Amino acid sequence: MIKELVYKNRSYRRFYEDEPVGRDLLVELVDLGRMSPSGRNLQPLKYFISNDRDLNAKIYPTLAWAGYLKDWGGPVEGERPSAYIVILEDTSLGQGMPHDQGIVCQSMLLGAVEKGLGGCVIASVKKAELADILNIPEHLKVALVLALGKPKEEVVVDDISEDGDIKYWRDSEQHHHVPKRTLKEVLINL
Amino acid sequence: MIKELVYKNRSYRRFYEDEPVGRDLLVELVDLGRMSPSGRNLQPLKYFISNDRDLNAKIYPTLAWAGYLKDWGGPVEGERPSAYIVILEDTSLGQGMPHDQGIVCQSMLLGAVEKGLGGCVIASVKKAELADILNIPEHLKVALVLALGKPKEEVVVDDISEDGDIKYWRDSEQHHHVPKRTLKEVLINL
Repeated sequence: MIKELVYKNRSYRRFYEDEPVGRDLLVELVDLGRMSPSGRNLQPLKYFISNDRDLNAKIYPTLAWAGYLKDWGGPVEGERPSAYIVILEDTSLGQGMPHDQGIVCQSMLLGAVEKGLGGCVIASVKKAELADILNIPEHLKVALVLALGKPKEEVVVDDISEDGDIKYWRDSEQHHHVPKRTLKEVLINL
Repeated sequence: MIKELVYKNRSYRRFYEDEPVGRDLLVELVDLGRMSPSGRNLQPLKYFISNDRDLNAKIYPTLAWAGYLKDWGGPVEGERPSAYIVILEDTSLGQGMPHDQGIVCQSMLLGAVEKGLGGCVIASVKKAELADILNIPEHLKVALVLALGKPKEEVVVDDISEDGDIKYWRDSEQHHHVPKRTLKEVLINL
């Protein structure tokens, strides 16, 4: 079950933008983040959600997409995410562990996949600009953005080739290929 | 389903040490980590697994347990983890994103919970000492340790109290209480 979800959970960057993502579902996903483990139980992460077209249109330009696809500037209108979860770090609570951010991302992504959605963790964000757009209080720092929607692309996982190139690429049918390291490569005492 | 697993997945620190965790299961969990998202698809994480009593006994002293429980030095013999997954960062592959480590932890923990196990992410590790014990090559740096086993404790989640104290504690029946921030506190535009 978890295996099925983890395997199905690919980083999607093109979506059926007209398919809405309900606010209740976003709240449920944030709850999954909230209930995930946190280093020293500090729980420094806060969340801002958007499924509003106008607000989404303001968030979109602050995000960088698919660095390895040099000829692709990101999803066109109509294929952009229907929702975002902005992950914030509350600096007034002390120094959080950086892996906390990943833990909550994976909880929320797997929750989204279970509901037939998909998403992408975006770390390359114009953080100050986004904080300004969303009127985020000074003590909350933008950490990551989760882009969400109903996926409109095929993602194919391939074993990494012998040259070790990890760059994803798109074939002539615009299927997105992701080279993954094999179990034999990553598990050093297999 | 994911909600059930995320809620069930608590940080457990006492286990039925005699209940083995199969090597095949550890390999399956590592595979879940491998198939999880990775920033820039770099996939810098490598893994070392142990379910061997003698090796576990060497790993155990390199780990720090439950910093807030000042009167508790960690699980006693018989209640220690039956297995470990050591998460390593391959520095020869370039600089990975720190949230990658959390993403793989959560995939593996949820996979463990689905199998009736539980675990704890341990960041406070004598890293050089552990690398030495496990004969880890120089270019692989110990990042985190996942301790795994069949949980032998009750973990209770409480809403955080008004004073905001996030320290977990044990009651007279040795149940482990974890104060969690409420949804209202963490979702800033609920």
